[in-house]
Amino acid sequence: MKILNLDQIKEILPRLDPIKEIEEGFAAYSSGRAVVPPVGELIFHEPPGDVHIKYGYLKEDEFYVVKIASGFYNNDRFNLPSNSGLMLLFSQKTGETRAVLLDDGYLTDVRTAAAGAVAAKHLAPRKVDCIGVVGAGAQGRMQLEYLKPILSCRRALVWGVNEEELRLYVRDMQPQGFEIRPTRDVTEIESLCRLIITATPAKKPLLKAKNIRPGTHITAVGSDTPEKQELEPGILKKANLVVADSLAQCISRGEIHHALNSGHVRREEIVELGHIILGKSSGRLSEKDITVADLTGVAVQDIQIAKAVYGAIEGF
Amino acid sequence: MKILNLDQIKEILPRLDPIKEIEEGFAAYSSGRAVVPPVGELIFHEPPGDVHIKYGYLKEDEFYVVKIASGFYNNDRFNLPSNSGLMLLFSQKTGETRAVLLDDGYLTDVRTAAAGAVAAKHLAPRKVDCIGVVGAGAQGRMQLEYLKPILSCRRALVWGVNEEELRLYVRDMQPQGFEIRPTRDVTEIESLCRLIITATPAKKPLLKAKNIRPGTHITAVGSDTPEKQELEPGILKKANLVVADSLAQCISRGEIHHALNSGHVRREEIVELGHIILGKSSGRLSEKDITVADLTGVAVQDIQIAKAVYGAIEGF
Repeated sequence: MKILNLDQIKEILPRLDPIKEIEEGFAAYSSGRAVVPPVGELIFHEPPGDVHIKYGYLKEDEFYVVKIASGFYNNDRFNLPSNSGLMLLFSQKTGETRAVLLDDGYLTDVRTAAAGAVAAKHLAPRKVDCIGVVGAGAQGRMQLEYLKPILSCRRALVWGVNEEELRLYVRDMQPQGFEIRPTRDVTEIESLCRLIITATPAKKPLLKAKNIRPGTHITAVGSDTPEKQELEPGILKKANLVVADSLAQCISRGEIHHALNSGHVRREEIVELGHIILGKSSGRLSEKDITVADLTGVAVQDIQIAKAVYGAIEGF
Repeated sequence: MKILNLDQIKEILPRLDPIKEIEEGFAAYSSGRAVVPPVGELIFHEPPGDVHIKYGYLKEDEFYVVKIASGFYNNDRFNLPSNSGLMLLFSQKTGETRAVLLDDGYLTDVRTAAAGAVAAKHLAPRKVDCIGVVGAGAQGRMQLEYLKPILSCRRALVWGVNEEELRLYVRDMQPQGFEIRPTRDVTEIESLCRLIITATPAKKPLLKAKNIRPGTHITAVGSDTPEKQELEPGILKKANLVVADSLAQCISRGEIHHALNSGHVRREEIVELGHIILGKSSGRLSEKDITVADLTGVAVQDIQIAKAVYGAIEGF
């Protein structure tokens, strides 16, 4: 059995191709090759936090994976990052523990950012002059970073909850080759950016349907519980294409869940990202289309990233 | 964060009182002080194995706990124990990982054996001349071991699947002060033992209703999935008292689940062990009563044992 800490995991990551792993994971999921039971969840109120337990396996594979990831959104009070957690690999044949990846939630950030890149690869319009990032936290940083191999655009307009958060975002991301302009006005992003990523724990919609322009793709990654919501459900109604990472999961959590409940979309209109990857469903049909990808985070992503890390440490 | 392996955990255990911890856990659970979502489950068929993810927390406490435990019942082919798994402690306030207890399923065995002791304490008839153990595996050993502080009886009749298993059982348990007689005939146990523990992964009933005598208490600990079954449902009908570790859980797994489905018991007849501990429900009313405790294993037990181990290692 291997036990790896975050530093060791970060040392291994450059040897991996998370975008490819996650793309293959979504394809496996939508082909029915993944067994992914409903997400386990604990919700805390004082202080506010949520814990997700995602687990499952690919059929006829070697491992099963359990991932625990939490977000405690007042952790800055204690000078701690909001995300924590770990990933566990077990043998599908004997149940033996193969690896404990003490990633403190980092691999969840990686696989979420990689999923954003996969969504952009298949759904973003051809011409993106400015990437819009709503949410200037860790995931807002990584989404931009993981778009690098997908898009040539290196300009980003970034919205955050306060000036200090934005200052740190600019400080961290400019050296990565991006030209970053911070904003406290989300309508600027809606009007100027044809690729928008939302990565906040918001419980009230930040993006408004009336402001979304033709030719925009939105990837919503923040909303992973039944409560959280970043997009007005009207955006999903206005969209030409609404894509779920997992249809089964998006029925009970995330943006699609809200839009289904309010009747803004119907279940049969939703397409799974894996089906687009496999060429079984159409992606964007025109440069003028509005497309929305709702990424609630599927255990198959955790399975893929944990397996990739484990594969790279054999003999570590 | 602490990472403990099985040897370190075994070194700590003698300093703990698992029976007391588990008794308090059941009381907390039945008082509504525990948050215990439904069990996460993975079932494998080739080779056969089941994985349970049990998790939750006590309200206004410091930790939340996630436990992964598996049984792969052909592991003896690989010279491996059937049980594996680990327990994880996290902060309820920040989500930080506090402890990784690499117990290979051992703490699950401990808390299950301790639950058997709690059930016997509250439900066994006063006079037990011979303890019946159905199932000569690891749990069949530990159930007997954990009955020591509860009962003065040191005679046991033990049923196993083959002579070799029984030979090893006798070899291991005689030195612990028990007089063990092995048997391949379960009806001997039904007729001679007034306290019977079943601890097998059977999927067909081993004990028969017609053979159960007045004044018998049965604790069934083996059946923890919807499929497994050790008792004919008629035994629960014949019983004067049927006790669940968790009513919510026993509706969908274990002996009570089978007996509810077949109409042999009604939901309102079932009593929770925690309510008996708290004195809110009656336990055994007469020496002639037949009582059955169905222990499917509740996350509150995992929470209690993990917290106890962690408490003992502060400064380890």
